[in-house]
Amino acid sequence: MKGIWLENNQLQLRTDIPTPEPPPGEALVRVLRAGICNTDLELLRGYYPYSGILGHEFVGVVAQGPENLLNRRVVGEINAVCGHCRFCRSGNSTHCENRTVLGIVNRHGAFAEYLCLPVENLHPVPDNVSTEIATFTEPIAAALEIQQQVALSANHRVLVVGDGKLGQLVAQTIALTGCELLVVGRHPEKLANLAARGIKTGLAKDVKDRFFDISVECTGNPEGFAIARRALRPRGTLVLKSTYAGNLNLDVSSLVVDEITLIGSRCGPFPAALQLLASEQLDVTPLIHARYHLSDGLAAFEYAQTRGVLKVLLEIGD
Amino acid sequence: MKGIWLENNQLQLRTDIPTPEPPPGEALVRVLRAGICNTDLELLRGYYPYSGILGHEFVGVVAQGPENLLNRRVVGEINAVCGHCRFCRSGNSTHCENRTVLGIVNRHGAFAEYLCLPVENLHPVPDNVSTEIATFTEPIAAALEIQQQVALSANHRVLVVGDGKLGQLVAQTIALTGCELLVVGRHPEKLANLAARGIKTGLAKDVKDRFFDISVECTGNPEGFAIARRALRPRGTLVLKSTYAGNLNLDVSSLVVDEITLIGSRCGPFPAALQLLASEQLDVTPLIHARYHLSDGLAAFEYAQTRGVLKVLLEIGD
Repeated sequence: MKGIWLENNQLQLRTDIPTPEPPPGEALVRVLRAGICNTDLELLRGYYPYSGILGHEFVGVVAQGPENLLNRRVVGEINAVCGHCRFCRSGNSTHCENRTVLGIVNRHGAFAEYLCLPVENLHPVPDNVSTEIATFTEPIAAALEIQQQVALSANHRVLVVGDGKLGQLVAQTIALTGCELLVVGRHPEKLANLAARGIKTGLAKDVKDRFFDISVECTGNPEGFAIARRALRPRGTLVLKSTYAGNLNLDVSSLVVDEITLIGSRCGPFPAALQLLASEQLDVTPLIHARYHLSDGLAAFEYAQTRGVLKVLLEIGD
Repeated sequence: MKGIWLENNQLQLRTDIPTPEPPPGEALVRVLRAGICNTDLELLRGYYPYSGILGHEFVGVVAQGPENLLNRRVVGEINAVCGHCRFCRSGNSTHCENRTVLGIVNRHGAFAEYLCLPVENLHPVPDNVSTEIATFTEPIAAALEIQQQVALSANHRVLVVGDGKLGQLVAQTIALTGCELLVVGRHPEKLANLAARGIKTGLAKDVKDRFFDISVECTGNPEGFAIARRALRPRGTLVLKSTYAGNLNLDVSSLVVDEITLIGSRCGPFPAALQLLASEQLDVTPLIHARYHLSDGLAAFEYAQTRGVLKVLLEIGD
């Protein structure tokens, strides 16, 4: 089969990849659409050692699997877990110590004609959600993880730093809580997406110091972190939603003096994400900046790395 | 009056300090005993710019003030707050944006014959608590702040990193929750204090990676932080109880991947601290390593900086 293969920080479009055979407990999924995520770009830059098929945001059709899923459109949670380690047993299975992660850790990903995932990872896509829209399920779930970790309410002042793909989804999901929300970024045209939905936007200079109860850092760069930090009132909470290329040089003493909480935030709940899409409470369409066929996958990656470009989708099957 | 005065990172024993006159709302306190804290040593090293009388851990007798407190032994909360800023109004008065802090920020401290504090800051010392023991109220309150921020229970595995003054008080207060507790440090003789109370102790090498639900960093050095970090299971919580001389170089991405929470922790509740002392649930006596008269205050500071020395008390009045 065809697929986009990463090896030694080099991408190849390969056509000689054997179609996988699902091991017991797993389903074979024929991929329809997939989205290029910043994590894919970071893997390409060697952020993590990974070799194999890239990709973890996808919609597919179950080609081999249990009857109730067969031929249905599905999305899939990316952590394939052991189910018996201490983290799985304690309800923290996304942190399974034996996990593989679709297109990220020891498991071939979604930028190919077929993929395998454990049956329990798959969620049927509601009929009224288009395949293209449903490719956003994984990043929306990640955005919703914030609300699993921090109770947000209409009384909170929340700052989202970053107007990229993740920042936009985080902003849209947080806006649904009715809180006082400000999103800051560097790209007027991206912020306009949010402003069009009635979300208040601005630039870094518009952020009032020590004003916000909660800030969410979605840029993955030290400047973004600094904005999120200085925005917080004492006893405020900074949610770390992005990873960073290197270490951050942090004034930890000020975290002590101001009793700040930092929370790292990763994968989130798929069912809640699908429900938001089905009830049309989010608008992801403006985030789609380009569509490429899998055969043009290398060009898709090149375009995805262009400054200002949001989501690039790969069209893989019908 | 006599007092220990810090100016340009130099300590002086001065005898020419005017006895303060309490402004409206404040009491004049004749100091009996005071304790030298690591923060005092850090101020001496220029960690914060401060000039004036040092000291914030004390017991005194109210010499001028409201009738119900007059001539009574008191301890005092160190943050003198405005009562009307947004932080005071929202119940976060220890973070008052106009605060002065006893012997730390714009307010003369306790290493002198007299000090002034707002009446509302003062708490009478229960009769069965000796003056010497009551000087530990402030650091015990700081240790108890952890339990205001993180709900600890018998089901938790908790690591305390650091066997110094603060680490010992943190360990003793946490032990009262019945959790599974390990305290690690570098000084067998200090750890022995805790072991004598039935608390499990060890060295850095005894810390199992990714094992603890909560770790508390009480060393203020990067090695201590690294131990507290690696000890945590995914979704664990690291409480920052110490400040650091400089910035820390932090792998923030790993906090995201493991969804770790960091919480800065500072001043805590005095009434709860006094109650623990009154009910004899803590043993602070082994922490007292020396007593000096205020006239020998410079020697007391020198001794307090000796490796391995825990609390040094200043005897100021009777």
